[in-house]
Amino acid sequence: MKRANKLVGSWMRAAGMEVRVDAAFNLIGRLSSKKRGAKCLVIGSHLDTVCNAGKYDGPLGVLLGLAVAERLRGRSLPFHLEVVGFSDEEGVRYHTTYLGSRAMLGLLGKRDLDLIREKGIEKARRSHRDLLAYLEAHIEQGPVLQRLRRPLGVVTAIAGQSRIRAAFIGRAGHAGTTPMTMRKDALCAAAEVILVAEKLGVVATVGQCAVDPGVSNVIPGKTTFSLDVRDAKDAKRKAACAKLHRLAAAVARRRGLRLEWKVVQETATASMDRNLTTALRRAAGQAPLLPSGAGHDAAEMALACPSAMLFVRCKDGISHHPDESVRTADVASALDVLTRAVLELAERHG
Amino acid sequence: MKRANKLVGSWMRAAGMEVRVDAAFNLIGRLSSKKRGAKCLVIGSHLDTVCNAGKYDGPLGVLLGLAVAERLRGRSLPFHLEVVGFSDEEGVRYHTTYLGSRAMLGLLGKRDLDLIREKGIEKARRSHRDLLAYLEAHIEQGPVLQRLRRPLGVVTAIAGQSRIRAAFIGRAGHAGTTPMTMRKDALCAAAEVILVAEKLGVVATVGQCAVDPGVSNVIPGKTTFSLDVRDAKDAKRKAACAKLHRLAAAVARRRGLRLEWKVVQETATASMDRNLTTALRRAAGQAPLLPSGAGHDAAEMALACPSAMLFVRCKDGISHHPDESVRTADVASALDVLTRAVLELAERHG
Repeated sequence: MKRANKLVGSWMRAAGMEVRVDAAFNLIGRLSSKKRGAKCLVIGSHLDTVCNAGKYDGPLGVLLGLAVAERLRGRSLPFHLEVVGFSDEEGVRYHTTYLGSRAMLGLLGKRDLDLIREKGIEKARRSHRDLLAYLEAHIEQGPVLQRLRRPLGVVTAIAGQSRIRAAFIGRAGHAGTTPMTMRKDALCAAAEVILVAEKLGVVATVGQCAVDPGVSNVIPGKTTFSLDVRDAKDAKRKAACAKLHRLAAAVARRRGLRLEWKVVQETATASMDRNLTTALRRAAGQAPLLPSGAGHDAAEMALACPSAMLFVRCKDGISHHPDESVRTADVASALDVLTRAVLELAERHG
Repeated sequence: MKRANKLVGSWMRAAGMEVRVDAAFNLIGRLSSKKRGAKCLVIGSHLDTVCNAGKYDGPLGVLLGLAVAERLRGRSLPFHLEVVGFSDEEGVRYHTTYLGSRAMLGLLGKRDLDLIREKGIEKARRSHRDLLAYLEAHIEQGPVLQRLRRPLGVVTAIAGQSRIRAAFIGRAGHAGTTPMTMRKDALCAAAEVILVAEKLGVVATVGQCAVDPGVSNVIPGKTTFSLDVRDAKDAKRKAACAKLHRLAAAVARRRGLRLEWKVVQETATASMDRNLTTALRRAAGQAPLLPSGAGHDAAEMALACPSAMLFVRCKDGISHHPDESVRTADVASALDVLTRAVLELAERHG
């Protein structure tokens, strides 16, 4: 993180920006406006990545912000222009997402602060009052734009998410000597839930499924599985989770098993600002609108100021993998669109 | 194994038997008959156990044989009476089952011999010609006798078994950004097979199921699972496996996945000898007949001579666990039944 901040910070300086790193290791480059009482337009994304990552998830948005600043250098803008490279959006270090942006917005709780070894990180907090708006460009991390043959998309909302940790507890037994009618097979129960989740009408994924004892000739005594449910409509997501919970309980009753069901994370949908989104879309030639199933710093920034996101097409939707790939021409389009959107904002606020 | 053989061997000697340990570490105690050209009646089971085992799976049958010999000591029998404590039935050491009994019967292949570090084990081979019959008592390792409220059962056949290692290979992807219609979810495919296997009409178990990459917010790209199929009718078992394979292939085609399907083990059903089984059952007061879903040394011995098995009720069908439990009265009944059966054989061959 420190080396990345140093490198990108040097590019920011070369683009004429004042550069600082805040207490949460967010990198902030600034072109100050001469207008009195000017507010601050932030363009950003994150510089951290997952392990064994691609090059674009995060850094692309920071470098696009930097490129916008390079283009607008010397222009008299009615707002300060800040380019932010947020730290630890992915949660690799502490399994907490959006660490940098939440620290900047003063949204870290006691549990976060207890967890974090670096002290004083809460001092990164800045006032929301001078924030005019937040723009973030990011690779789509999905296959929709490629399928639509469109280089760019504009995000309507960052989908809310429920993460559930569930387990069926049955009874292990000898795979040869326990008649089928006398079993309490925890994996068969999980299989029922997995197949219903797939047809639920929301984006639902069982990504983990662990069998105990996990031996080929022993009936599964316990199966633990994860459930990740997302939808841009919070009510629809919650109804889907409740329906799955009822179904799992019914499966447990019918099979004589015990069910454990724990909601371990619940994030509300973050709607993008309608005016900003319209501006981005206009600048992008009526680019398609799509929800973001992945989380982004914009979900936190939207709590503090009007926010909008631009998606850049990526190859085969691949992300969190070295094969992440974007087309140079698509990135050039994204730069043009962001620049046009900033100039339109400048006109409106001028 | 050496310490167990030494201990049980000392009890055999105390019961008046000649004792030896063969090249495969099988413990053999013998009461020799004075009849010229006498053949050999073997009563046995195994002395080895799985790790963290109960006390009865294996040793109970050896000690029952020993107790029969104690009771018949001094009687003039028309056959030699051998009590055998087979070594390594469970396959803990080399993942090969029935090692001791197969060595004794000369059934070890080159692959076995290459695997085994102890040299000369093939010298345990004995002629089949002097074998009159084989009797084995064993805990049921299942819940059927307990449910029938009967202390003993007589085994019709040791069910044949197919072990399959299968995998669906799909495509990992972001759980938030990949639309449900564009997924190739390997776990959902496995869930379909798991639920069909359960309703197949044979004894079928998926005991292992591993998801790759196994992360809550990543669509399963690969799911590997085991399949254990057993039935006392070989044709029925094979038909069930073929049906499941066809179904899995159809699931893979429909979902755009790749299927790997490998039969890693296939054992034919070992039928118990009808005359011996009738004799055991008569001695046991028309005890219920049941197939054995678990494998036993009797499956190998049946290849060499008429063989039969007596099952002893065990608590809740629990086995391969320290909680394995039998009732003293049930063991006493088993001892009476075995003794009566041996005496009936003596009469028939006298």
